[in-house]
Amino acid sequence: MSAGQQLYDFAALIYPICRSITGNGVRETLRLVGQRIPLQVREVPTGSRAFDWEVPLEWNIEDAYVMDPQGRRVVDFQEHNLHIVSYSEPVSVSMPREELVARLHALPEHPDWIPYRTSYYRRSWGFCMRQRDLERLPAGSYRVEIKSRLERGSLTYAEAVIPGRTRDEVLFFAHVCHPSLANDNTSGVSIATALARWVAGEPRRYTYRFVFAPGTIGSLCWLARNESRLKRVRHGMVLALLGDPGPLTYKMSRRESSEIDAVAQYVLSAMDPRAQVIGFSPYGYDERQLCSPGFDLPVGRLTRSVNGGYSQYHSSADDLSLIRPEFLAQSYEACQRIISILETDGRYVNLSPKGEPLLGKRGLYGSVGGRSPAEREHALLWVLNQSDGSRSLLDIARRSGIDFQRVCEAASALQNAGLLAPQGRKRDASSKGGAQRATGVRKLQSKRGGR
Amino acid sequence: MSAGQQLYDFAALIYPICRSITGNGVRETLRLVGQRIPLQVREVPTGSRAFDWEVPLEWNIEDAYVMDPQGRRVVDFQEHNLHIVSYSEPVSVSMPREELVARLHALPEHPDWIPYRTSYYRRSWGFCMRQRDLERLPAGSYRVEIKSRLERGSLTYAEAVIPGRTRDEVLFFAHVCHPSLANDNTSGVSIATALARWVAGEPRRYTYRFVFAPGTIGSLCWLARNESRLKRVRHGMVLALLGDPGPLTYKMSRRESSEIDAVAQYVLSAMDPRAQVIGFSPYGYDERQLCSPGFDLPVGRLTRSVNGGYSQYHSSADDLSLIRPEFLAQSYEACQRIISILETDGRYVNLSPKGEPLLGKRGLYGSVGGRSPAEREHALLWVLNQSDGSRSLLDIARRSGIDFQRVCEAASALQNAGLLAPQGRKRDASSKGGAQRATGVRKLQSKRGGR
Amino acid sequence: MSAGQQLYDFAALIYPICRSITGNGVRETLRLVGQRIPLQVREVPTGSRAFDWEVPLEWNIEDAYVMDPQGRRVVDFQEHNLHIVSYSEPVSVSMPREELVARLHALPEHPDWIPYRTSYYRRSWGFCMRQRDLERLPAGSYRVEIKSRLERGSLTYAEAVIPGRTRDEVLFFAHVCHPSLANDNTSGVSIATALARWVAGEPRRYTYRFVFAPGTIGSLCWLARNESRLKRVRHGMVLALLGDPGPLTYKMSRRESSEIDAVAQYVLSAMDPRAQVIGFSPYGYDERQLCSPGFDLPVGRLTRSVNGGYSQYHSSADDLSLIRPEFLAQSYEACQRIISILETDGRYVNLSPKGEPLLGKRGLYGSVGGRSPAEREHALLWVLNQSDGSRSLLDIARRSGIDFQRVCEAASALQNAGLLAPQGRKRDASSKGGAQRATGVRKLQSKRGGR
Repeated sequence: MSAGQQLYDFAALIYPICRSITGNGVRETLRLVGQRIPLQVREVPTGSRAFDWEVPLEWNIEDAYVMDPQGRRVVDFQEHNLHIVSYSEPVSVSMPREELVARLHALPEHPDWIPYRTSYYRRSWGFCMRQRDLERLPAGSYRVEIKSRLERGSLTYAEAVIPGRTRDEVLFFAHVCHPSLANDNTSGVSIATALARWVAGEPRRYTYRFVFAPGTIGSLCWLARNESRLKRVRHGMVLALLGDPGPLTYKMSRRESSEIDAVAQYVLSAMDPRAQVIGFSPYGYDERQLCSPGFDLPVGRLTRSVNGGYSQYHSSADDLSLIRPEFLAQSYEACQRIISILETDGRYVNLSPKGEPLLGKRGLYGSVGGRSPAEREHALLWVLNQSDGSRSLLDIARRSGIDFQRVCEAASALQNAGLLAPQGRKRDASSKGGAQRATGVRKLQSKRGGR
Repeated sequence: MSAGQQLYDFAALIYPICRSITGNGVRETLRLVGQRIPLQVREVPTGSRAFDWEVPLEWNIEDAYVMDPQGRRVVDFQEHNLHIVSYSEPVSVSMPREELVARLHALPEHPDWIPYRTSYYRRSWGFCMRQRDLERLPAGSYRVEIKSRLERGSLTYAEAVIPGRTRDEVLFFAHVCHPSLANDNTSGVSIATALARWVAGEPRRYTYRFVFAPGTIGSLCWLARNESRLKRVRHGMVLALLGDPGPLTYKMSRRESSEIDAVAQYVLSAMDPRAQVIGFSPYGYDERQLCSPGFDLPVGRLTRSVNGGYSQYHSSADDLSLIRPEFLAQSYEACQRIISILETDGRYVNLSPKGEPLLGKRGLYGSVGGRSPAEREHALLWVLNQSDGSRSLLDIARRSGIDFQRVCEAASALQNAGLLAPQGRKRDASSKGGAQRATGVRKLQSKRGGR
Repeated sequence: MSAGQQLYDFAALIYPICRSITGNGVRETLRLVGQRIPLQVREVPTGSRAFDWEVPLEWNIEDAYVMDPQGRRVVDFQEHNLHIVSYSEPVSVSMPREELVARLHALPEHPDWIPYRTSYYRRSWGFCMRQRDLERLPAGSYRVEIKSRLERGSLTYAEAVIPGRTRDEVLFFAHVCHPSLANDNTSGVSIATALARWVAGEPRRYTYRFVFAPGTIGSLCWLARNESRLKRVRHGMVLALLGDPGPLTYKMSRRESSEIDAVAQYVLSAMDPRAQVIGFSPYGYDERQLCSPGFDLPVGRLTRSVNGGYSQYHSSADDLSLIRPEFLAQSYEACQRIISILETDGRYVNLSPKGEPLLGKRGLYGSVGGRSPAEREHALLWVLNQSDGSRSLLDIARRSGIDFQRVCEAASALQNAGLLAPQGRKRDASSKGGAQRATGVRKLQSKRGGR
């Protein structure tokens, strides 16, 4: 089965669950994620502080409906999760149509779609319905039943941590608080899950942390509980809206000059001429919190269409027909490529910086002169020339126009030939008294044969 | 009466006066200005030093004419102020046409216009006339009479100072040395006068200083007498050429990165798609002196057409038909808008920088989620996210694309909610031991209710 | 005779010589250069170290040919220098056509051209020939004779040093290692020779060093023997490919912000709208070594077409019909103009920085006001306004759009009037206690007369 189909299938599996920012829908979703990757689930009790916020009462719902004067269920939670305004309080009441209408949300411009509405932080209730159904409601008295519970409980989030050679972290965030919306949370959850599984099988320098949390309050809880660890976050991305037909879109971190910004820009432009990179803005998903000025993490966001950028956004039309395996697969590949560059990019130092070293003698350069060198040979010259510790391999790839992969291969060949060292390692060596560095140089000199 | 008409009428009132860099024309002009705003008139005696310059003899003129062989006044100062070369010395002489012609200035490409010429710093005399009249002069002997006086006296300039809450100053400069040229000095004098009256009725942080002075030597005298006070000048503009049909044009200060440069650019682009911002250059009006490298004041220049940029420039065709109330009104409005932004712009610090504060609880954010936030709500998020002390409200307006006024309203609402503080004020607080700041934070926490 | 024709004639004179990276061809070329300019010839013995490289055995060749089964010389070194792969070892052998073919190089896409091939650093042999001749070789046994010598000897390079008022150097590099290729080395050698002769007759601040050396190993030898002197190199250019019809092309130094980069860009854009400036890249001519990270010299490269950028490159079609006197002349003029700007550019300090000084009194400005100033007067204002020590005359020319020459004339006039001083000289003065500076100011004041 293709990667895209697998991503789609998991999105489809969790699509029907009625999620909110707290409650059993989130727990069930995380249980299914946890069947695929090792997951630590956290419960944060109602009333816990998270900076300016606190965890609200836990919300769960069994049933909800509106019954018309003829006894027909004209709005029915059993038919679609979106029919109920999320966090609606329990209600059992009768009221005339005129009074009821103030509690009903619809989309006049899309009469067949049910909108998605919430009232997390003000106790209230309401229903969402199709405009065409709303207009047909007969006059008379209506019965409203909402069998929900708002009780002390907890907010649930989860983390998958895949340790690497270092404690430096790459952070991925996916929100898990939306009920039956396919692009707007199941696509991100599915791709984050698959990435965690893939990265666990790859050699890696970084530790990878995948957080599955309700939007806003969930990321604030995570931030509050991990504040001392944030300095380890070297790069990150919020993952959302990754299955629709829109072009790949990377939204920059608040700094707009983080390494992840450069890497994502490079990968997207190589993958798709339609791809776009957009500036940071303080609205969107959990980058709102991660990039607030008090944290300012180097975290961007990958989407296809942006939030609010497609007509089906936050409505029942954001269903499983909107997302497609091939788009999920391309989004997933973009993440993989970004990770690959983050893992391999680095700054190097030319250990033979005075003039070019003699590459032919080391088998790195063709012996017949007069012809144009191959791109492989150009890559060697670029890496040697630019590696003064100030420019990364990605910088060199972008400046030279040579593919990053080929630049990496050149750096690797030069390292094997003793001509190049990672900037950090060299610094380590010299801090140990320069002994290793001196040895390295001597080794180089002994290689210079009689040609 | 419209603002434009009032501006026009005052320009028309002072248009007929024969001004020069010294003399009674300047004094009469300043007397009329002084009827409208409180004005301090300064007299700088002949021979006073102003850096590399000194105040010349004072020049006044009663009459001047050229009489042809038939006894007709073919050039007559009584007919138009521009007929006499400004600062012409007294003359009473007869000479043949051939000799006279060397003293006559005309515009062959505009045969019906009288040019404007001066000889301030070399003792000389001459007349300006229409080319078509020049060509008709018959041969023979001409009588030349110039009843002028070049005597020890003084140079006159004036200031209107409107004190603000602080001693930091905003400086406006208008030149008052041109005789009957409408766009090229009466427009600037009229707008500066109206601005001084308007700003006196507005709440204001800055002290406003309006200087009405002869060009070059007048601004040099002002600079020489105010050198120790220049450090208070935070922003400024030279006002000139503000009534013609050309597009609003802002010329940047020498630094090209002053706050006034950013503000003027923002205002002009919002007011008129034809508006233009041009780079600094060392020729023009008194920005030549104010932006000389020894002062380098943050002073730009507002004009419509630029000096030399319209065919009527420095000729009798720069008359009251060239300027129009609606253009004066738009120029005036640009100045007002620039002042408004200077007054309200500033850098702020988010007092709750870790994650977003809970805006809904403070009545700043709608309680129903799922819908796109209103622009008002976006403005709140932008101000919170960007206010780390490094970016001004204008920076935020430009980056977000949200109107400056709305950004200011957001900042104000956030200040009222205790979420934002002016950068300076916060610094003051912490320098007093941080007590107020700590209180502010405590107040915030006590606001967090049980939700 | 025109400059272009002289340049062409010298290129034609050295075109027939069979040069390589060592040997008598280089010596004969340098002997002819030495007849025109004072030249110090250096011999670097075989086996000498130059960083990672060492000088190879010296190569000389008397004859070489391939004889077909019928005894015809089907490839003959006597017919064209390019027929032999440079550095081919001595051979005297017979072999069947099938075996021989592996030693033959041709250009299928240009069947009438002989390619240029070398094997400097791997002992080998081979022939280059026209593709159309290669295809006609009959089957059978071939006789191969190469009468070459690979012996201990030396590498030869030469320098012409033209001392200036200071020891700061401008460095020009031309490669002299290519056999009969007209654009690709005789053009550069000819222009470098002519420049050295011209610059010796000009007043000059800088010392000029012209190096004529074999590519790569020659510049490495020069670098190794001059390492301690490199800090004196203030500017430089590699000269090559200067006679073909392509547009003037400047390749930036590795820093891409050296003064030579700005100067060359200015000169080229003024000379030819087709001219181009390209970014640094680590492949090309001796800028590869001069701009390696261990040296990073402020050295760019001037060419017309770039290496590999014209179809005749590295083939027998790069002959005397490819280069033309007018193109050589234009390239030469570009070098002269660049030198002129390097010699005259500098940063100055306005000694009367508060307001404009009174230029009219010093005879620098017209006395009749009201007219637009001449460009000469604008240049004075620009130099005065911008000369705060941070901007060079070239910066001022670029910012003002006024020709560099006119800006220099303005600076010179202002210096003569005591209004401007070179930045360095002023600094010297103030370090001597400020006495001279104070005197300068006093002198200025005493000039202010009674006007």
